Amino acid sequence: MDDRFLYERISQRLLEQIGAGTFTVGQKLPSVRRMSELFKVSVNTVMQSYRQLEAEGYLDIRPQSGVYVRRSDIHDIPEPDGSRYPLLPVEVSLSEQVLHYMELHADPDMTRLGIALPGPEVLPVDRVMATLRDVTRHHGLEVWDYMHPNGHTLFTHHLARRSLSYQVPVTADDIIVTSGTMEALSLALRSVSRPGDTVAVESPTYYGSLLLLETHQRKVVEVPTHPRYGISLTALEKVFQRGGVAACMVSPNAQNPLGFTMSEERKQALVALSARYQVPLIENDVWGDTVYQDGALPAKAFDKEGLVLYCNSFSKTLMPGLRIGWAAAGRFQKRFRELKQLSTITSTSISQIVMGRLLESGFYAQHQRDLRGHLSQQVEAMATEVRRWFPEGTRLTRPTGGCVLWVRLPGKVDTVTLFQRAAAQGIHVFPGGVFSLENKHADYIRLNAGSAVTAPVRRALRWLGETAAGLAAG
Amino acid sequence: MDDRFLYERISQRLLEQIGAGTFTVGQKLPSVRRMSELFKVSVNTVMQSYRQLEAEGYLDIRPQSGVYVRRSDIHDIPEPDGSRYPLLPVEVSLSEQVLHYMELHADPDMTRLGIALPGPEVLPVDRVMATLRDVTRHHGLEVWDYMHPNGHTLFTHHLARRSLSYQVPVTADDIIVTSGTMEALSLALRSVSRPGDTVAVESPTYYGSLLLLETHQRKVVEVPTHPRYGISLTALEKVFQRGGVAACMVSPNAQNPLGFTMSEERKQALVALSARYQVPLIENDVWGDTVYQDGALPAKAFDKEGLVLYCNSFSKTLMPGLRIGWAAAGRFQKRFRELKQLSTITSTSISQIVMGRLLESGFYAQHQRDLRGHLSQQVEAMATEVRRWFPEGTRLTRPTGGCVLWVRLPGKVDTVTLFQRAAAQGIHVFPGGVFSLENKHADYIRLNAGSAVTAPVRRALRWLGETAAGLAAG
Repeated sequence: MDDRFLYERISQRLLEQIGAGTFTVGQKLPSVRRMSELFKVSVNTVMQSYRQLEAEGYLDIRPQSGVYVRRSDIHDIPEPDGSRYPLLPVEVSLSEQVLHYMELHADPDMTRLGIALPGPEVLPVDRVMATLRDVTRHHGLEVWDYMHPNGHTLFTHHLARRSLSYQVPVTADDIIVTSGTMEALSLALRSVSRPGDTVAVESPTYYGSLLLLETHQRKVVEVPTHPRYGISLTALEKVFQRGGVAACMVSPNAQNPLGFTMSEERKQALVALSARYQVPLIENDVWGDTVYQDGALPAKAFDKEGLVLYCNSFSKTLMPGLRIGWAAAGRFQKRFRELKQLSTITSTSISQIVMGRLLESGFYAQHQRDLRGHLSQQVEAMATEVRRWFPEGTRLTRPTGGCVLWVRLPGKVDTVTLFQRAAAQGIHVFPGGVFSLENKHADYIRLNAGSAVTAPVRRALRWLGETAAGLAAG
Repeated sequence: MDDRFLYERISQRLLEQIGAGTFTVGQKLPSVRRMSELFKVSVNTVMQSYRQLEAEGYLDIRPQSGVYVRRSDIHDIPEPDGSRYPLLPVEVSLSEQVLHYMELHADPDMTRLGIALPGPEVLPVDRVMATLRDVTRHHGLEVWDYMHPNGHTLFTHHLARRSLSYQVPVTADDIIVTSGTMEALSLALRSVSRPGDTVAVESPTYYGSLLLLETHQRKVVEVPTHPRYGISLTALEKVFQRGGVAACMVSPNAQNPLGFTMSEERKQALVALSARYQVPLIENDVWGDTVYQDGALPAKAFDKEGLVLYCNSFSKTLMPGLRIGWAAAGRFQKRFRELKQLSTITSTSISQIVMGRLLESGFYAQHQRDLRGHLSQQVEAMATEVRRWFPEGTRLTRPTGGCVLWVRLPGKVDTVTLFQRAAAQGIHVFPGGVFSLENKHADYIRLNAGSAVTAPVRRALRWLGETAAGLAAG
């Protein structure tokens, strides 16, 4: 670690503890000497950190007395206001914007706070590459050929095993391998609805779902979604009652961008609602494996009637470049499979065998535990920086999984301006407007905490916070 | 080579020459001694071959005189009868059948005459695996990540180079990488048409195109297509003139299943027709690299107005498991790219880098030349066996590329019965009915000559021929 930033790291840790309530406003912090022992750094380094935090208004340094906490800004997002939602079908037209925002991810010089994705340093790139090599040596002909449309049995078999603890387990035969989650969602949508149909979605939701609905000419009903509890079941039932809804797209685990994980009871209630009104649920569980607490089940686990079309991949937890995902489409499996064959015939053989082996050996399960730890730490570290640099009045989620923060800026600024200025500075963030329709979340940004909060990331967050303050002021 | 089959090989070569007109009916063949010198085999082996062909009715052995050709059945398909085509839009519903027929490909115990695909023994499986390993060593991070939506520049750059000799070359920026040809075709179709629209197709055509049209709720106008000259431009113009056609799907090079390659003049006339009536052409060039004669250009080469959506992949010429293809969508590129991102986001990174390197090194170009040689030999060898074993009245194409034979059986039998009986024997063939609508080609089968005509293949063809004869006889 670069010594120049040692004091920065101490400041960050202190702010995390203040943010978490370990030290409250008015409380005295450990002495400079104690801190230098704790962190194994010089007294000077601790003083540098304390002075920095004093300058930022977080601490009071009282000579002859000690160092006290002065401010502890714990932001939280207020519950979305249900009354803003007309619950009426709307047409989507976001694609131009989103594709523009996504472009920047390919630029290697950007500070990558845009696309929601863990960095390669917390994912086992070398292990995957070694497995790829091994598979080319021992499975050449299988890798070469078209694979069975449903997928490679080693892979589907181990996927099925993951559902052992479900109330309604999934078998290998229930699974169809796809080219990533996006293809799974797209085929699921097409399996249960037609152009012109209306689909209910969480609001805010993953922009990719909205684009999918746009491109397939589906109309959208946005359902208010709470940053801690998830989609409003009351509002959803109202929508179902009124009828004319072909499906509902949800993400009950570590939802993007809000980061909530629905409780088991609420997941069961959601599935029951779908069964009562016979409306299929398309479940996007791509962040499910990152829920920080162990044992989060998908809604699919409670799907007695085969109405849940479960979609997932390892793009967010192992390697996006694998381009494989899978679906368990319940009673719509036959139609789903037809559409799959006509979309991309089969999915990359080599990726399926690699993934099958990483599941088989137990490597993936171990990695998943490590990844959760990394992501929750990184998200907390980034939240600390946001609290530190962003203006008064900023709101911030407390994710239970995944690696994004959903941040509301004060002053009703349109974050597209912030996006543009940031891009010019080499900083890639995602403006909030595309996570819902009619610009409902135009004053939000989404930040990716997929990588550690290093000095360049800290500088980027500081720049974003200061620029947001400037925009809010006028 | 197994000695027991030496005489079989000689019979096969003789029949090829007889089929090709080198020896005509009534002509005298070389003496047994001369043949034994030519083939470096014993006199007995030659006699065994001559006796076999005599038993099959091809030769006359006249004691004290010599061996004479008795029969030379050169089958050819008659030009399709334009009058059978009403040229009216029809809805497609083939998916159930086709998926059933495709299933068997996954069974490793089948004799693979079903799916059109060169065998692994004529494709450089080891070289691709070695390149895969190398790429995992040197491009780990690139392989790991999402790739730029348009594709990897090494790959797209070398793809663009292939169009140097086009009248209208394609640049790297014109190219979008897809997950195989099927995804390219699907996105092309969706870029230029909507559900309910009508699309013109060749008849017969690749069943995958018909399924695509079915699944996207397009109507179809079938245009008569000649086994040597390709789609009837007169009929196509009639269809365009009447209006209401959103696009036309064609495969001017080594068309599947007919095996024709349109002349350059006819390709230009086709593109001119598309320009005159402003109807986009979706060009499936997946067999283009297998045209036996050098220098076949796609229709895209003449596309001055950007109306041709060119689709291709290396699935048929290198490795289906790569799951990458590409498109050059002309004036529809923006829309195509949007749809691509929403279909599978990006395509497998590793495959793109592997392919980029195989193009860069010149390996692919060399392999392509070898492959053409193999395929034309294998097709000729299989045609010889068909002539030998199939009943009188059988018709057969003379492909100019690719590796399939399109065979019409006599007696108006429905080849679905043949398919079923063959499957029970461990032989996978494709019934012709799904290559057009309304069962127009129900008395055809398509045979894959992707692998060498080995003893099991010969046995399979003999069984098919004899069973076809039985069915024809009633």
